[in-house]
Formats: sequence, C-alpha cells, structure tokens
Amino acid sequence: VRPAIERLQRAAAEQRGLIPLAGGLPSTRLFPRRALGEALARALSDPQAALQYGWPEGRRTLRAWIAERLSARGLRVAPDEVIVTSGAQQALAIACELCAARGAEVQVDAESYPAALDLFRGRGLRPHATPRARALRYAMPALSNPRGRALDAVERARLARDEAPLIEDDAYAELRFDGRTPEPIAARARARVWHVGSFSKTLCPGLRVGWLVPPPRMRERALRKKRDGDLQASSLGQAVLERFLERDDFAARLARARAFYRARAEKLARAVERRLPGWRFRFPDGGFSLWVEADEPGDDELLLERAVERGVSFDPGRLFRAGGRCEPLALRLCFSSAPVGALDEGVRRLGRAWDALRRARDREPRRAAHAAP
Amino acid sequence: VRPAIERLQRAAAEQRGLIPLAGGLPSTRLFPRRALGEALARALSDPQAALQYGWPEGRRTLRAWIAERLSARGLRVAPDEVIVTSGAQQALAIACELCAARGAEVQVDAESYPAALDLFRGRGLRPHATPRARALRYAMPALSNPRGRALDAVERARLARDEAPLIEDDAYAELRFDGRTPEPIAARARARVWHVGSFSKTLCPGLRVGWLVPPPRMRERALRKKRDGDLQASSLGQAVLERFLERDDFAARLARARAFYRARAEKLARAVERRLPGWRFRFPDGGFSLWVEADEPGDDELLLERAVERGVSFDPGRLFRAGGRCEPLALRLCFSSAPVGALDEGVRRLGRAWDALRRARDREPRRAAHAAP
Repeated sequence: VRPAIERLQRAAAEQRGLIPLAGGLPSTRLFPRRALGEALARALSDPQAALQYGWPEGRRTLRAWIAERLSARGLRVAPDEVIVTSGAQQALAIACELCAARGAEVQVDAESYPAALDLFRGRGLRPHATPRARALRYAMPALSNPRGRALDAVERARLARDEAPLIEDDAYAELRFDGRTPEPIAARARARVWHVGSFSKTLCPGLRVGWLVPPPRMRERALRKKRDGDLQASSLGQAVLERFLERDDFAARLARARAFYRARAEKLARAVERRLPGWRFRFPDGGFSLWVEADEPGDDELLLERAVERGVSFDPGRLFRAGGRCEPLALRLCFSSAPVGALDEGVRRLGRAWDALRRARDREPRRAAHAAP
Repeated sequence: VRPAIERLQRAAAEQRGLIPLAGGLPSTRLFPRRALGEALARALSDPQAALQYGWPEGRRTLRAWIAERLSARGLRVAPDEVIVTSGAQQALAIACELCAARGAEVQVDAESYPAALDLFRGRGLRPHATPRARALRYAMPALSNPRGRALDAVERARLARDEAPLIEDDAYAELRFDGRTPEPIAARARARVWHVGSFSKTLCPGLRVGWLVPPPRMRERALRKKRDGDLQASSLGQAVLERFLERDDFAARLARARAFYRARAEKLARAVERRLPGWRFRFPDGGFSLWVEADEPGDDELLLERAVERGVSFDPGRLFRAGGRCEPLALRLCFSSAPVGALDEGVRRLGRAWDALRRARDREPRRAAHAAP
C-alpha cells in the first residue's frame, strides 16, 4: 500500500494549484530568510567553521545553546552531553539502534510519526500500540504528532516511572499554542531516556540540524554511531545556526510561530466543522495538524486519489498506525504550510472527494447486482 | 588504543602553533568562499528549495549534474539512479548495511580508510586484508587512501571480474595529479558495485553532500535506508551546490586543486627525504597524503605523543589497518591542509620526536638492568 500512497503524494506535490494539507511541513513564510542570509555571510567569514570538517559531536557553541535551553526547561545537561545530529530523524535512528535488537517490540502511540514507524520496521523492530513485551517506548510527551496532544500529568508520571528505555521525541515541544513548554521526561529519568529535538519545526528543516541527549552511560556509543553514520552534521548548517542564534530573539520567534499556527488551526477546524459533517476531531494543543476521524468506514488511499483529482492532498491515517490499518477511517490534515486563504477551499475539495467516494461505494453493490447474470 | 589516539588528536587540534600533518582535510585555502557566498544568496531567494524539507533522494538538478559527470567517465547513469547522501560516509553506511550481515568478512586493502574500518566494525562486520570468505569488498580503485595509489589495469580488471559486492569509494578520484580520472569500476560491473562519491575533497566537506549509485535492483532499498537514517541530505547544502555549479568551471577548479596539492606533495616528500632518513615512501599518484614506513620498529601512538609535544601531528599507521597492528611502523603524513611554508618544519619536528623515541628505547634496557636488584 505504501508505494501507491507515496506515488500519489509525489504526484500531488507536482500538481499545479493543488492545496497541500499533507506533509507536516513548517510554513515557508516563517523562515527568517534575511536574518539567515546575514548569518550565512557572517558564518562564511570563518571558512574553517562553516566549510571544513568538524567533530562528530557538533560545534560547541551550538551544543551550549541547546544545553542551556534544555536546562531552562529542567533537563540540566552540559554541552558535552548533547550530540548534534543530522536532524531529529538521525537521533531516532541512533537511539533505536542502541536500544533494541532485531525482532524486538517497540511501544508506540495508537497514532505515531510515520518516519519513526518506518525506521523501526526498517531496522527489523516491531512497532505496536499494545505490545506484549517491549524493548523500547517511543513517545512525543510534550506534543504528539499527528494528534497534536500534550500528555497530562498522570500520563507523564507514568512515562517517567516506566522501565523500558524511552525515546522522547520533543520535535514539537516548543509549538504548543499555550506557550507552555513542559519539563522533558528525561529530566526525571535521565538514565533510560533518549531525548531528541530539532530546529526543523521551529526554524526550518533544510539545515538538517537536530540533537540527541542520550543516557549518560550511552554517550560514547551514541557518538560512535553518529560518526559511523555520516561523520558529522553539516558544518554550514551548524555555523549558520550559531551566527543566527547569537542575534535572534528565539522566544519572540516562537511566540509568533505559535500565534501563526494557532490562527491557521482555528481556520482549518472551522472549515472541517462546516464542510466535513460526520468527521470528528479534538482541537490540538499545538503543532501542525488536525487528526480527523470519520463516523463511517472508507479507504483512505482511495480517498486520497479522489482528493488529488480535485486538487487537495492530505496524509492517510494508515500511515500513522503501527499495524497500517485504515479503520477507523482517519486523515491528518495539516494547517501549517498551505496558504491560509486556501484552507477553507482545500477542505471544500476534500468534502467533494469524500462525497464522490461515498456515492461510488453506495452504487457499487447495485452495479454488482446489475452485472449478475 | 583508539581512545588514547583520539585524545591526542583532539589535543593536537587545539594546540596553538602545532603543524597538522594529520586529518586528511582539504585545504581551507581552496574553498571558494566568495562564489559560495554568492551561490548561497541566490539559493536563499528560493526558500522552498534551500530551507524546506526535500525528497530523500535529493534535488534533481544536483543529481543530474552528478549523473552527467559520471556518464562522461563511462558510468552511464540517469539522475534517478543517483541518491544524494549526507557525505560519502553515509553512502558507505547504506551500502554495508544492505550488503553484509553481522559477522561477515569485508575485504579491505592492507591500509584503508579508518572511518570505513570503524563503520564496518561498528556494524558487526569483520574487515580483513586477506579474508577467508568475504561478503563484501571495499576499495578505492581510482585513488587509494592513505597510499594515494591508483590501481593499474590488471588490478582494475580483477576488481571488475570479482564476484562479491564491491563498494567503490571514489572520493579522491578527481584529485589524481596526472588529471586522468578513470572509468569507475561500476561501469563494468553495475549489478554488484556500490559507487560512492563526494564533494568533500574537491570542493569542501562542510556541506556534507556525497552520493551513492547503488546496483539498480537495490535502488529502492538503498533509498529507504537513506530516508530512515536522516530523511534527506541538507537542503541548504544541495541548493547552494546547484547554484554554485551552474556558474563554476569545475574542470578548471580541479586542475588548480591538483597543481596545488601536487606542489605540496613534492615539498613534503623532499622534507621527508631530508629529515626522516630511514623512512621510505612511494610518491603518491594524487590525494592528500604520503604513507611513510620506518625501517625499524616503534610504537606509533608513543611517537604521536612525542610529536604533539614538539608541535606536529600525524595519523598513526595502525588506524589504517584492519587488524589495528602498528608494525611495520607507518605514518600517514598529510600535505593537504597545513600551511605550505610549515611542511618542512613539521617534518623537522617529527624527526626530533622520532629521535627522542629511539633514544628512549635504546636507554630502556640499560635502565631496566640498573633497576635490577
């Protein structure tokens, strides 16, 4: 099923005039082009830093910035405990390689991040929402993807008390609409938590800079995996970040991003209420998407096909489930990157695609009856 | 032994006035700062390309550029057969993950690239110069590291006729002093060769952009490993390369780089002849380093310690050997990145370190005799 969905998604990305409610991309409008350009110019004045090889753990000033932010949230770490990775995905890959052997079960949420599920499967692990025996837990406690949910205190305490190693994916933590960025679970369970973060959602993904704070006793092994995998994260990406962050008001940037995404979330939510009757959702606590579920069955891949024909895309719900099932029928609708003025029209097109799918479904038994000899 | 050597190397890198004959770095002086700065400015005018997420296989214009260059050398591939990787190291990691299971033997040259040896060991493979049964061959046919040797026609034909999968590491292929860039072995044995290349030696390493041309039937699996590992190579690095390459005369750049490195190689060779009597080497066909071997035994780690005390560094020979042995005593001396005026002085310091080591060795038995009761 996956290759067919990927073909559809790639075709959608090329289609002129299509309204993308897929992808989970940050808004290009929020990328600080001018400030990044200035930071790049400053970074290039030190070609050794920006263009030469660097150490596998990453540049020190950048690690110090990350450590300071985490410390302010209650995860007190020194710069040397932070490994700069080629995006959060590489941090996940390192953690899962060191935590679980082939065939092991990984506990994930009922809906989880597709690239993490793919990674686990690709490494021979078995992601399950309700595993029998798990070697590893993967979660996004501060803010989940695709539901955009923040765990409550009871759920957080349970995660902190757990026994299995935990990959804490904090990619969206700073994009909660309420502006509260919770203490990482790693602060309460440092010895078994692999804390993972990224600049991809808060600043831009194209630099490919994320981080990993492994359990202290695993630091050397994690660093070795990092080095074996690609030697080091991009020197240019790290150097430009260092120069950018020394002048940026990152807190103000986050506040603007939260307001920006919240307004879009509200707009998309209103469109769904109006144009997709019979689909339910819970308004997210933050992030980039609504998770909507239908009150009747259907095939999310077929719906995507109909939707792309009508000029809108979304992410089929099955991609987010460990078992790959498409029932209950669900979609991830991203409000983050489509033009804000197009959100309502996107959902309108989706509504028409859904109507078409239902009509075809209702016709089918009759047509089959006609065709009988 | 490795951690001690790494500590020494890190200390050396921080030491003021030290002359680095270690590291295998390209010369920062050859980095086209201004042209890269202009390319960056142009790249940022399309923030979607430079800063947003991209597809795992990499940007198409860049893949087309790579495919065209490989085709001109006889490896006729389409852009879609090229996967852009986060440096050549990631291409090696993908190839070895898909070619060999844990415990398998990998045939390498008697001296080989340390980061590849580390990678193989880290993945549970066993690198050997003379394996009993090998699952995989790793080689640098166009130009080897650390010896800087180009394989001759007979050796090339043998590699092409072989049966095991081959990782063809072409990182230095375009830096042969004679300017002849040979046909990749992959052109003769496409179905079993993983062709690996990089901009790190010819342009600069800090962008972290390399490439992998897997055997055609392995393309989908390789792409999946790439995506699982870090989603994609840096958008910024790829976008700046596209903008840079559209205006750069890359052939002229390579010609300048070859002349630049050849002059340094000659300078370093003369210094070794003059100041390290009893050490032998073969003048390299290209690349960044001389491989020098002593005609008497010694400990390369101890020599590095003495050398760093005297303000010079090098890469101990044992790092390049699958078995990690330090006999025969050998060093990799890099002429690529130290100031050209410092090469002779660097070797002079190394000569003094070697003398000190020999004197200490000659004293030791006597001292031991004195200490006897």
